[in-house]
Amino acid sequence: MLRHIARRLGSLHGQIQFSNGLKGVSPNQLLSKETHRHLQSSLETISPISMMSLWPFSSQPRDFSQPNSSWSPEMRKVYDHYIALCDTDSENGEKQRGPWRKLPSYNRSIKYATAGIHLSKLIQAKARLFTRNVKEQGATFEYVVFVNKEEKRCVCVFQAGHLLEGAPGHVHGGAIATIIDTVTGSLAGFLSGPIMTANLNIDYRSPMPLGSVVLIHSALDRIERKKTYITCKVTSTDESKLYTEATALFVSIGVGHLFGSRN
Amino acid sequence: MLRHIARRLGSLHGQIQFSNGLKGVSPNQLLSKETHRHLQSSLETISPISMMSLWPFSSQPRDFSQPNSSWSPEMRKVYDHYIALCDTDSENGEKQRGPWRKLPSYNRSIKYATAGIHLSKLIQAKARLFTRNVKEQGATFEYVVFVNKEEKRCVCVFQAGHLLEGAPGHVHGGAIATIIDTVTGSLAGFLSGPIMTANLNIDYRSPMPLGSVVLIHSALDRIERKKTYITCKVTSTDESKLYTEATALFVSIGVGHLFGSRN
Repeated sequence: MLRHIARRLGSLHGQIQFSNGLKGVSPNQLLSKETHRHLQSSLETISPISMMSLWPFSSQPRDFSQPNSSWSPEMRKVYDHYIALCDTDSENGEKQRGPWRKLPSYNRSIKYATAGIHLSKLIQAKARLFTRNVKEQGATFEYVVFVNKEEKRCVCVFQAGHLLEGAPGHVHGGAIATIIDTVTGSLAGFLSGPIMTANLNIDYRSPMPLGSVVLIHSALDRIERKKTYITCKVTSTDESKLYTEATALFVSIGVGHLFGSRN
Repeated sequence: MLRHIARRLGSLHGQIQFSNGLKGVSPNQLLSKETHRHLQSSLETISPISMMSLWPFSSQPRDFSQPNSSWSPEMRKVYDHYIALCDTDSENGEKQRGPWRKLPSYNRSIKYATAGIHLSKLIQAKARLFTRNVKEQGATFEYVVFVNKEEKRCVCVFQAGHLLEGAPGHVHGGAIATIIDTVTGSLAGFLSGPIMTANLNIDYRSPMPLGSVVLIHSALDRIERKKTYITCKVTSTDESKLYTEATALFVSIGVGHLFGSRN
């Protein structure tokens, strides 16, 4: 979808087509008053396709949710487990269906978009997604989100780096809230299109040591008009230990603000 | 209190004396099972005193909540307002009482403490507090916490940097949750001694543009045995705009884990 929006920015004609259900949005619908903190979550749900020439940045965006040398064997093992359950291209070129799909994860959102209205160009140029703002691999958030469309749920594998400290040796409650917001928002965006977080309610059950690899399980509770309710729990990779439980509420929004609309 | 704990680490005799109310803790009390994500919050409540020679790091810790060149005039103005209401030393050396007190803010917790049990020394040595893990001034969390002991409340001045992005041009919900956890935890630690976060319930009312300077008002709701309930709201500096509302629950804990206890 980042590429669809890139296409829109490159040429303000035609319709945007969101692969997550929002199809054929009219220009009027695009120009809503609302802003949207979680748009990039839903933006992340689109797999790379064509239109790269209209990508507004100087180079192809990097998917940061790929294995790297900072990943522990435990992180890699869970990743490999879910990757094996994703869609694959077989040798004869046919697509084989799998129940899971890996979402890509970039380190920034769209340049000169909402930001153009009220932010300096310096801030816009330097802005980076909070969860991907440290270059050192393994230092902060290493994570991959897999979504299961049929079951309306997703699983995130998360390895917590040494720069996420709260109390000595343990992950900061805010870092846990951040990954929960990110993962539940990705699922809500995947299911409901552009959304923003309205509520997070987080119960911290057990402290999480730095360096832990955990699973963040998110599932759709219900959708009521513009409201999407998601449940979430954070467990050890064998699911024997519960670290955190949460509920999240997201509200559907328009996307006009991205294009500079104040109307 | 960091220095008290440093003293404890340097010489495991005598009693720790917490200036926030926990006085004369016995060694048995120190060796509890529990860990404590928010200990550093309460650690921050102690103003620099003596015992520097027992500080376990190579140099005196830096207080990151001092004005720097990244602060906007708005940030500096609010800071100056509260600083003028803090305790001061007059010319004749007498202390003049003010209703507010500025809490210092460091970028790490205690080396080789809880961490010693389950973390590699590499992770321990590199660990940094989540809210102070980026060296570039102004890039992430610029904040200062002022506490009013009489009124059992605190105010944090927070300037949100360009690396905290969620949706284009706006602060990530997780970054807002992080500063709320930090500020409410500082107040709970100040009032109740060592605590850890048990619940955060956050209502996001309005998106916050990157670069915003906001106030985070936290106040004690009630204390019930080991539970400390804090209310919180995030507003513009003139308090005309409400960005976020939250409640937080903290549970009092022992501090034994810091010294390597698993019992």
